[in-house]
Amino acid sequence: MKKHLSLLTISLLCLITVANSQTYGLVLHGGAGTITKAGLSKERQNVYETGLQKALDAGYFVLDEGGNAEDAVIAAIRILEDDSNFNSARGSVLNANGAVEMDASIMKGVDLNAGAVAGVTTVRHPIEAATKVMLSSPHVMMSNAGADLFAKEQGLEIMPTSYFITKGSQATLKGVQDRLKEQGSVESEYPDWKFGTVGVAALDKQGNLAAGTSTGGMTNKMHNRIGDSPIIGAGTYANNKTCAVSCTGHGEYFIRLNLAHEVSALMLYKGYDVEKAASFMIHKSLSDMGGSGGLVAMDRKGHISMPFNTPGMFRAYQMSDGRKSVLMFKDEE
Amino acid sequence: MKKHLSLLTISLLCLITVANSQTYGLVLHGGAGTITKAGLSKERQNVYETGLQKALDAGYFVLDEGGNAEDAVIAAIRILEDDSNFNSARGSVLNANGAVEMDASIMKGVDLNAGAVAGVTTVRHPIEAATKVMLSSPHVMMSNAGADLFAKEQGLEIMPTSYFITKGSQATLKGVQDRLKEQGSVESEYPDWKFGTVGVAALDKQGNLAAGTSTGGMTNKMHNRIGDSPIIGAGTYANNKTCAVSCTGHGEYFIRLNLAHEVSALMLYKGYDVEKAASFMIHKSLSDMGGSGGLVAMDRKGHISMPFNTPGMFRAYQMSDGRKSVLMFKDEE
Repeated sequence: MKKHLSLLTISLLCLITVANSQTYGLVLHGGAGTITKAGLSKERQNVYETGLQKALDAGYFVLDEGGNAEDAVIAAIRILEDDSNFNSARGSVLNANGAVEMDASIMKGVDLNAGAVAGVTTVRHPIEAATKVMLSSPHVMMSNAGADLFAKEQGLEIMPTSYFITKGSQATLKGVQDRLKEQGSVESEYPDWKFGTVGVAALDKQGNLAAGTSTGGMTNKMHNRIGDSPIIGAGTYANNKTCAVSCTGHGEYFIRLNLAHEVSALMLYKGYDVEKAASFMIHKSLSDMGGSGGLVAMDRKGHISMPFNTPGMFRAYQMSDGRKSVLMFKDEE
Repeated sequence: MKKHLSLLTISLLCLITVANSQTYGLVLHGGAGTITKAGLSKERQNVYETGLQKALDAGYFVLDEGGNAEDAVIAAIRILEDDSNFNSARGSVLNANGAVEMDASIMKGVDLNAGAVAGVTTVRHPIEAATKVMLSSPHVMMSNAGADLFAKEQGLEIMPTSYFITKGSQATLKGVQDRLKEQGSVESEYPDWKFGTVGVAALDKQGNLAAGTSTGGMTNKMHNRIGDSPIIGAGTYANNKTCAVSCTGHGEYFIRLNLAHEVSALMLYKGYDVEKAASFMIHKSLSDMGGSGGLVAMDRKGHISMPFNTPGMFRAYQMSDGRKSVLMFKDEE
């Protein structure tokens, strides 16, 4: 009898250990594009690596402390939004009028709750504005002045226009507009003018997924264009049944393909794993349509996928089982 | 030999007949809600029936003449947008500030091309503005002043504010706001304050699908709220591989469920037919989440689905094989 009891105790302990062994962690991106070793000085590589690592640390800290996946998403994106090297918030590119218009969204896998803002111009952290829409409004999506006003009323930090507009973004806009006027095309000199986004997929100790995305959109976009980043199902999606996804790239294609949601549908209905589903959408569906970009995705077991069909993608991950890396070029793992 | 030749001729004729026997037609909705025989006078029933029939005729005429599915969608929606009895364009409900903000989108099944506008305030036909975004801009989605300006530059008809704001919509807004202030709830007196949309799914002689949706949103919505109607994959979706879908109802749920796109995914990846996929999404997924509404959907063979979990839904269809009906209550076919 004693023997049976100790066997039972051991079995129970094993079960508890398994229950506690939920892998947690996050994967993030800082945009896909023409990111190559030849085109990026060591110094610039270091700058990007430092930014990605800082965001990774902030997100992982939240998860390691037992925080929710969505709070890890917010913590990591806040860092990237403050970093002028990435196309979101402070580092946003400019629209055709020379103004900043920022998009962001967030989604929780546990209850499919979601929030998004499009075309905000004053919020320091658009990802927080999206979160406020999710938690403190009856709506999922708000835009422009209404979203800015709501964010302000919710007590979020508001910044003057000068905070978001840099000499660099103004020079890029002028360059793109001049080339378009002179040559009708800008791809050779500004290959990444349509790109740039930051995003995170996170898995917490409770086994819940969340995803978020934030962007300044594409350089020279028309006034009040909305890209895929604030569209639930296009640029951002999270569902505990499948995965959390954040996309980056030429947003119009991601909207038409419902790309983030389609990754989830392939897992849910076709039984694909996250790698197969995400790779199929980027390397087959997106590529076949002529679109460029990439995504980061994570499933509930902590499997990560980071496909892109551009020369490179800023990306990083850290998991509780020891996996961690900061990457930007192709053929890195 | 002669006999063989005539057999061949007959076979070829049969093949041509089969090739020409593509069913075509359209299904449309004018919103779901508390639409019951007891609550609607015969006179009001006639008003709605007349409006739906007129839109149906306009859309069917385009298809019958050999026009494209998207042109049939536009033709039918234009009629409903001009009809102040339906919540879109002229009949739009008012937001919390007493203003009209209209959303619309359109999608083609043949190439997944799509266009959408959110929060436009001056365009007589928001569905045409969405089409212009699809055809004449590099973008898929535009919002607010930028979308209004673009529509004007594209030569679309612009109307003064007074055209869109009716005494009826002002009275409803006041009623809803008063009840919310006094009772915190308005459902008993204004059960449909969150509803109202118009939308079409069409199939043309070439076998191509298209879908479109147009709405004034929900009464008392916050300034610059975006619902599901202009979100590709939420309120509108079309894919020749599966179906064309237009949704109506409490939009926030449709966004979180990616409802229109999920109907397509269930068909594509699980082998559901359009009726099973659409019914599952409305009666299971939407209902389980606590959301209300409905949709109209059509597949490439002309099968129609029109599920809703509200007491009624304004809906109508006409197909080249003779099927046709104008309906509004439950348990009608």
